[in-house]
Amino acid sequence: MSKYWSDFVHQLEPYVPGEQPTMSKLVKLNTNEHPLGPSPRVIEAIREQADARLRLYPDPDSGQLKEAIAGYYADKGYGITRDQVFVGNGSDEVLAHLFLGFFKQDKPLLFPDITYSFYKVYCGLYQIEYDAVPLNEALAISVDDYLKPNGGIIFPNPNAPTGQLLPLRDIERLLQANTESLVVVDEAYIDFGGDTAIALVNRYPNLLVTQTLSKSRSLAGLRIGLAVGDAALIDGLNRIKDSFNSYPMDRLAIAAGKAAFDDREWFEKGCDLVIQQREWLDEALSQRGFEGLPSAANFLFTRHPKHSGESLASGLRELGVIVRHFGKPERIADYLRITVGTPEQNQALIEALDTLL
Amino acid sequence: MSKYWSDFVHQLEPYVPGEQPTMSKLVKLNTNEHPLGPSPRVIEAIREQADARLRLYPDPDSGQLKEAIAGYYADKGYGITRDQVFVGNGSDEVLAHLFLGFFKQDKPLLFPDITYSFYKVYCGLYQIEYDAVPLNEALAISVDDYLKPNGGIIFPNPNAPTGQLLPLRDIERLLQANTESLVVVDEAYIDFGGDTAIALVNRYPNLLVTQTLSKSRSLAGLRIGLAVGDAALIDGLNRIKDSFNSYPMDRLAIAAGKAAFDDREWFEKGCDLVIQQREWLDEALSQRGFEGLPSAANFLFTRHPKHSGESLASGLRELGVIVRHFGKPERIADYLRITVGTPEQNQALIEALDTLL
Repeated sequence: MSKYWSDFVHQLEPYVPGEQPTMSKLVKLNTNEHPLGPSPRVIEAIREQADARLRLYPDPDSGQLKEAIAGYYADKGYGITRDQVFVGNGSDEVLAHLFLGFFKQDKPLLFPDITYSFYKVYCGLYQIEYDAVPLNEALAISVDDYLKPNGGIIFPNPNAPTGQLLPLRDIERLLQANTESLVVVDEAYIDFGGDTAIALVNRYPNLLVTQTLSKSRSLAGLRIGLAVGDAALIDGLNRIKDSFNSYPMDRLAIAAGKAAFDDREWFEKGCDLVIQQREWLDEALSQRGFEGLPSAANFLFTRHPKHSGESLASGLRELGVIVRHFGKPERIADYLRITVGTPEQNQALIEALDTLL
Repeated sequence: MSKYWSDFVHQLEPYVPGEQPTMSKLVKLNTNEHPLGPSPRVIEAIREQADARLRLYPDPDSGQLKEAIAGYYADKGYGITRDQVFVGNGSDEVLAHLFLGFFKQDKPLLFPDITYSFYKVYCGLYQIEYDAVPLNEALAISVDDYLKPNGGIIFPNPNAPTGQLLPLRDIERLLQANTESLVVVDEAYIDFGGDTAIALVNRYPNLLVTQTLSKSRSLAGLRIGLAVGDAALIDGLNRIKDSFNSYPMDRLAIAAGKAAFDDREWFEKGCDLVIQQREWLDEALSQRGFEGLPSAANFLFTRHPKHSGESLASGLRELGVIVRHFGKPERIADYLRITVGTPEQNQALIEALDTLL
């Protein structure tokens, strides 16, 4: 508390990230990191850039990185150009900018009641009115619930922490019914089993898609996020960025991010491993009585009918395995969010559970 | 332009950074980068971190970097502890957060009319009222001009782009006369010839000092900035940061920033070179009729009585030398801001001027 704070700072309820413990012996399955390291080409790109040129400012437009991203999606047939790409210091920064740049409206922003908890925090930071729309009985998003007056819509796809995917045809229905405000699809986890809505941006000027390199591209340690959409939306984001920090991406991140998009083989192999391990883990958990939601992400959201989420999370912690337990709201109090790890980590998790169940 | 923008976005006038050309033959003296590269220990720290651990999130609190900064200033006898240090993705991000966190007040923010032009931009972004206080006849800050009702005060010391230094005793007078609102001293250039106001933070809870690693520590390419002040001010900044981006500093920047503070010898040698070259350049320019302001920074702000700033800047550009020319306001229309370069670069600048004068 300080009398020098702006008034609203007293009311802020900041985001609380998952724990980042420094002990190396832990089986860390709590913040949805990729089980494998980034591409060797990423490491090489960083080493190649680490020299006296660090005295110089980076390209404020991160041109090489934007071109790599546009090229990647152009090659998929989506016709994306560089002026349709925005990059930021992690997708959290991209999200923060778009909340300020697009969602300060007269009508409330809509997002699911159970979702990425940072959305509510951005609303507090920028004093944006919102309406949290309940997930349906199956803890899924129902598009029909979003067909009402709004100043914008945002949801992760697949949703977090539930992992459930909304098919592109539902997203398209939402875009067609909601042309007066912006729809943001936050695709942090899309590469683990969904189709990207980037395929739709050239048909819907009211669509913005965000992604991160922290999950499927194994670069949580580097902080790179992106948005793809109509050039007029990207222009709006650039106006916010250039009023906040001209150089959000450093020289190493620009080079590393480009290399991560260029090495498509490493990326695909990594996603395949996660998907295969997710299936193994899902099956192993089912056999032990867990009731999980269908996941298209690199984590499982699951509960056990005979054990509380709290007791399982703390029991696992005592055995050196960390998973995420949110505790609230009530509807998800007994769920655990478990990151899909390496085969060894997943095996260790199952063995630890076997001593608890 | 887009109908999906928040209303205020249309009125934004974003900051325009100095040009970052990619041609390598240029003598680039336009964005106040350090003439030498960063410490070899910085390069080593980056290489040591560049491996599979990049898959993992960084420490959200950047603890190692904060401890290195606190240790550096504690060793100078200022008694700084880790909870008095904030770090961000370049000092621009630190400044953006403090504008939102401290300067949204009922009374106007005060800053010099000729100063870092990003201040005005932050006010536009966060809709903060401000009053630009004219520099005096000598293009210097007069503390007496700031002794009036305000919602905060900010100025660079030395000021940019003038390079003139305000002595600590004047800053102390301002702090004593202005206890009801925050005073921020933006010390981007302090290491090139001034005394840091960090020496005062334990006596004045209304003082916050910002610095950057982009200038004296030769890391513009990495984006690391910091603030030091009373722990309650740092707590306010943390609330903003944790409502914006939990992980603003990546793993490489944390390690590199720590190494930059640890290698004190490299830092001091680099500052000494810049100071010595500034004196050489100042003298060489005076001999050619230039009238410069006294500079405590790594640049000179100077004009020639017989040549317009515009003609000199464009003439130099044709000869492959880039300097910064702001053009407005009128009072500084004929000034050039020239970064102090290596001995070779400074020599090349003087030779180019000799063909123009």
